[in-house]
Amino acid sequence: MQYTFSDKISPLKPSAIREIFKSLADPSIISFAAGNPAPESFPVRELSRISAEIFENRSAEALQYSITEGYTPLRELVSARLKEKFGIGGEDDMLIITSGGQQGLDLTAKVLCNEGDTVIVENPSFIGALNAFRAYNTVLKSVDLNEDGMDLVQLEQLLASDKRVRMIYTIPTFQNPKGTTASAENRRAVLALAKKYGVIVLEDNPYGELRFAGGEVPTIKSMDTEGHVVYSGSFSKVLSAGMRVGFLCGPKEILTKVVVAKQVNDVHTNIFFQMMAAEYMDKCDMDAHIARIRKLYRTKCGAMLAAMDQYFDKRVQYTRPQGGLFLWVTLPGQIDMPTFVQRAIERKVAVVPGSAFLTDESLPCSSFRMNYSMPSLEQIDTGCRILGELADEMLGD
Amino acid sequence: MQYTFSDKISPLKPSAIREIFKSLADPSIISFAAGNPAPESFPVRELSRISAEIFENRSAEALQYSITEGYTPLRELVSARLKEKFGIGGEDDMLIITSGGQQGLDLTAKVLCNEGDTVIVENPSFIGALNAFRAYNTVLKSVDLNEDGMDLVQLEQLLASDKRVRMIYTIPTFQNPKGTTASAENRRAVLALAKKYGVIVLEDNPYGELRFAGGEVPTIKSMDTEGHVVYSGSFSKVLSAGMRVGFLCGPKEILTKVVVAKQVNDVHTNIFFQMMAAEYMDKCDMDAHIARIRKLYRTKCGAMLAAMDQYFDKRVQYTRPQGGLFLWVTLPGQIDMPTFVQRAIERKVAVVPGSAFLTDESLPCSSFRMNYSMPSLEQIDTGCRILGELADEMLGD
Repeated sequence: MQYTFSDKISPLKPSAIREIFKSLADPSIISFAAGNPAPESFPVRELSRISAEIFENRSAEALQYSITEGYTPLRELVSARLKEKFGIGGEDDMLIITSGGQQGLDLTAKVLCNEGDTVIVENPSFIGALNAFRAYNTVLKSVDLNEDGMDLVQLEQLLASDKRVRMIYTIPTFQNPKGTTASAENRRAVLALAKKYGVIVLEDNPYGELRFAGGEVPTIKSMDTEGHVVYSGSFSKVLSAGMRVGFLCGPKEILTKVVVAKQVNDVHTNIFFQMMAAEYMDKCDMDAHIARIRKLYRTKCGAMLAAMDQYFDKRVQYTRPQGGLFLWVTLPGQIDMPTFVQRAIERKVAVVPGSAFLTDESLPCSSFRMNYSMPSLEQIDTGCRILGELADEMLGD
Repeated sequence: MQYTFSDKISPLKPSAIREIFKSLADPSIISFAAGNPAPESFPVRELSRISAEIFENRSAEALQYSITEGYTPLRELVSARLKEKFGIGGEDDMLIITSGGQQGLDLTAKVLCNEGDTVIVENPSFIGALNAFRAYNTVLKSVDLNEDGMDLVQLEQLLASDKRVRMIYTIPTFQNPKGTTASAENRRAVLALAKKYGVIVLEDNPYGELRFAGGEVPTIKSMDTEGHVVYSGSFSKVLSAGMRVGFLCGPKEILTKVVVAKQVNDVHTNIFFQMMAAEYMDKCDMDAHIARIRKLYRTKCGAMLAAMDQYFDKRVQYTRPQGGLFLWVTLPGQIDMPTFVQRAIERKVAVVPGSAFLTDESLPCSSFRMNYSMPSLEQIDTGCRILGELADEMLGD
């Protein structure tokens, strides 16, 4: 049979990252490509103990169908934490549990956007979000991401010129892929523009707990008094990425629709792991655990920056993150990026070419993304040396 | 802020079943309304042991990001079982793991259907599927479901008259909500019509393992030689509903697209429980476990039929399922169904009104769905007596 596919899906290519991830089965490759948290960031012993307790005492509930909104104690614990740590959640807000942060992004777009509507994104941005929005046939328009956040002039130009903008998608804290953090002023300005033009801000904050340098910057959601912001978060970087548990906090009216969309998407999120997360938050010292992760990433990010300072030509530029998992390297324009990435793989070092993070992947891009959470300190040093030598050779070509 | 929503989501109401499910927190209510498997159908002891083993030996893999297609050993084990039990899976087929059966239905529609395309469904049909299809702005057209399966005359009329039909959605075995099973001839005819008109059959078989009477009928997928059938299955009724692990088997070309759609939907399904399911299939006696569930449901269904035979007026009709979780009761036309359901709830018995399962919920419907897997034998007897008395009163009104 000859198949035809919906026009939502036809143009979608498999995520470059997922594909690279698959090819990383080769253990001799030093990977700076994945977005995996360090395995040490999963509190295995505590989760194991909690799991045994749930099987012992609450298995009927943990293995049975549950409600779409999520496990009530977990919703309450996450709400309380968001309130305390990030000033998030007003009277008109609601919090639900999602199957990882990704589902929250997907379903928010589904609920808010008709085909042909515009979503404004950062340039570059998280590929999983871009593809989720593409898969609802939305139009993606991008705004440059400066050191202090979205380019406000470009943002207002887009908002003023395009009546079909429904949503601004932003990762203001430890951005993926750039590793930069928007200033409080920039966030306030983005929210003001969203208000002025009547659009929703989808604030994606999967790395927010992972600050290892600098001072806290308020979330956009914490500035939201009139229900313009939907906030997405996740346990992937602090408890387990594989369990697929995230959350979404936003105006009740929107979240009620997201619940309906989730109901027909996967009914509910794995309830066993929702109970695990709740028990962990309730009984274990989550702050101490996160402090250990921060320390680990401070060390790893520091090692990567030190190695790049040592091995990279002065013309190579890179961001200096204050948290999260990624940094962003920009090569001098004379280096051809596809060739660079290809040669790096031949030398057993994987990075993600920056073009994967653009709304138009065919545009030239002289940057690539580096992950420091997953590789060991030794791999960080060796890999950066290899990349530095390669860049030197290609600069000399 | 004033919110507007996508036209995909605006018309969707929360599932009547989920809403009833939420109201069932009241333990004094006898519920025939939910679709929950019996808690006894979850092999708690084995899952508990496997969980401890995974935490002990493979925690890094079980808590980390994984690949979208699903855990490879689980895919292989499910493929082998489908081959053995249901004759499913040819050279051009592929099997992937989904976050419950629901996600497989949702993503298949996303991948195959543009907005405005038609999906043919059974009348009545599974509400979760209908709403999933609605949420892609498809047009639902229904075909009556007879004792032996879809009405073939109506089916061909629809196929011949509507060029935008993309998919036929069917639950041929122990249908939800009717409890009926399509004959082999009917299945062959449905497949032949799909071939003739170049459309895909989405065969949903979540209850296929739960036959407790009658002889096996071949799956439509087992008759599929030219890649017209996508087959959906689930662990929800045999290992755990709350873990949200299902699978989809179909033509590689289609499933490759579903993987891309899944990647942007939830990245992958909870990997810990994928490993649990694989280990269970590999090391435990799944057939013996399923035999116990079948026996349990044979007893429960038998008890419900016996109680209905005893308590219900002769003018009340009901199906006699050979497996699955549900049966379908049709009251004489003079009984107003909304009033009946309302009065039943007042007497602490919950059923789902049949209109919830129609493509047009506003149409009159004199049937309701009964679930026998969840209530106890005593509840089955008491609840049926109450419903019988209520029907008698209303017939006497």
